[in-house]
Amino acid sequence: MSYMNNNPTIALLSGGLDSSTAAAMAIEQGKVVIGLSFNYGQRHHKELEAAKSIANFLCIAEHHILNINLSLWGGSSLTDMSQEIPKEGIQKDIIPNTYVPCRNTVFIAIGLSLAEARGANQLILGINAMDYSGYPDCRPDYLEAYQDLANLASKSGREGKGTKLWAPLINWNKKDIAKEALRLGLPIEKTWSCYAGREKACGKCDSCRLRDEALKGIGRSDLCTKPEP
Amino acid sequence: MSYMNNNPTIALLSGGLDSSTAAAMAIEQGKVVIGLSFNYGQRHHKELEAAKSIANFLCIAEHHILNINLSLWGGSSLTDMSQEIPKEGIQKDIIPNTYVPCRNTVFIAIGLSLAEARGANQLILGINAMDYSGYPDCRPDYLEAYQDLANLASKSGREGKGTKLWAPLINWNKKDIAKEALRLGLPIEKTWSCYAGREKACGKCDSCRLRDEALKGIGRSDLCTKPEP
Repeated sequence: MSYMNNNPTIALLSGGLDSSTAAAMAIEQGKVVIGLSFNYGQRHHKELEAAKSIANFLCIAEHHILNINLSLWGGSSLTDMSQEIPKEGIQKDIIPNTYVPCRNTVFIAIGLSLAEARGANQLILGINAMDYSGYPDCRPDYLEAYQDLANLASKSGREGKGTKLWAPLINWNKKDIAKEALRLGLPIEKTWSCYAGREKACGKCDSCRLRDEALKGIGRSDLCTKPEP
Repeated sequence: MSYMNNNPTIALLSGGLDSSTAAAMAIEQGKVVIGLSFNYGQRHHKELEAAKSIANFLCIAEHHILNINLSLWGGSSLTDMSQEIPKEGIQKDIIPNTYVPCRNTVFIAIGLSLAEARGANQLILGINAMDYSGYPDCRPDYLEAYQDLANLASKSGREGKGTKLWAPLINWNKKDIAKEALRLGLPIEKTWSCYAGREKACGKCDSCRLRDEALKGIGRSDLCTKPEP
């Protein structure tokens, strides 16, 4: 597909609040957005269904869902069903077992491939350093190093016209992200954050806790997880 | 699978001469090698069959073949059947259409994921800057930038015990690689280099030309491609 002289933007869409908000910010700026989601051997497909809903809501130009089975080697409670998802609450500066080895590194690399194939000059990421301070691949220095690599990795990068990594939420807290999502009119109820994949969100995993705390913080308890009994 | 205190090494195996030689070099050094190959939507599966043969020959510890369909967006004659593979010979300093957008960036990222999951402290790459001077992602500066990223991308990297990218052939010419493959006793006839995927190697694509020139150069015309009539 050709976008003529209108360079599109690639948005990684996980189906969660952060990446949905980042993509909506790009749409608001008038970008032509191509979405990319991953069926990576995660516990459940609820987040992929959420990603599709958000892609539909935002009327993006294309939405690719790539199969890449990282559960072949696991190493995380999200890709290895024999590991339990922590439910005791967030431990500061500890990398929980929900960290998937080099997942962001893999996803960004694939995003750069799609970007180069489509002539996209931007790759939007919902990553956020505040709430995931333990994660090595959500920090600003990591992203800067990735930009340096991207500038050397492709033909356009070598010509100084490469893909710019854009992580607008990297220094935001979750409450401000939720506020921005509401301002943008994003259907927050269509996003999915829970690490477990049951019918309802569990309300106990780190991801549910962060989301609910943020939504309560902006006075929208009505949008919070209804935990399972 | 646990390798106890013996950190394994990940080897990307394409089924070609370069990656097979690099893996054999690691085996000679006494490394426990885990192979990783990609079914990435390439034109044919001959190279995957070759990768399996080489993995068997080298008796490596594990061999993963990951499906990742980069032909979803194409952008290369190797992942888009509507593009023709060039047969006129190698054009110096021009990136041919056989370049797959960010393929090495994607493959190395996935290798780093497997490395972190298995506690591997090394990732062996067969990439080579001499014969592919036009390719952005086969050059030393690219690899250095990737090492900087790898050091920040994972838990072990942050602790200074991350995965070391090792590309022993990066500054070798193809003739020296072929010589090393012979010295190591590698069954060169089991490797596959041809970009086309017909019964016999075509003898005309860049990859066949480089391979045959090298093999002739070391007096082993008997191992050269028998081009199709």
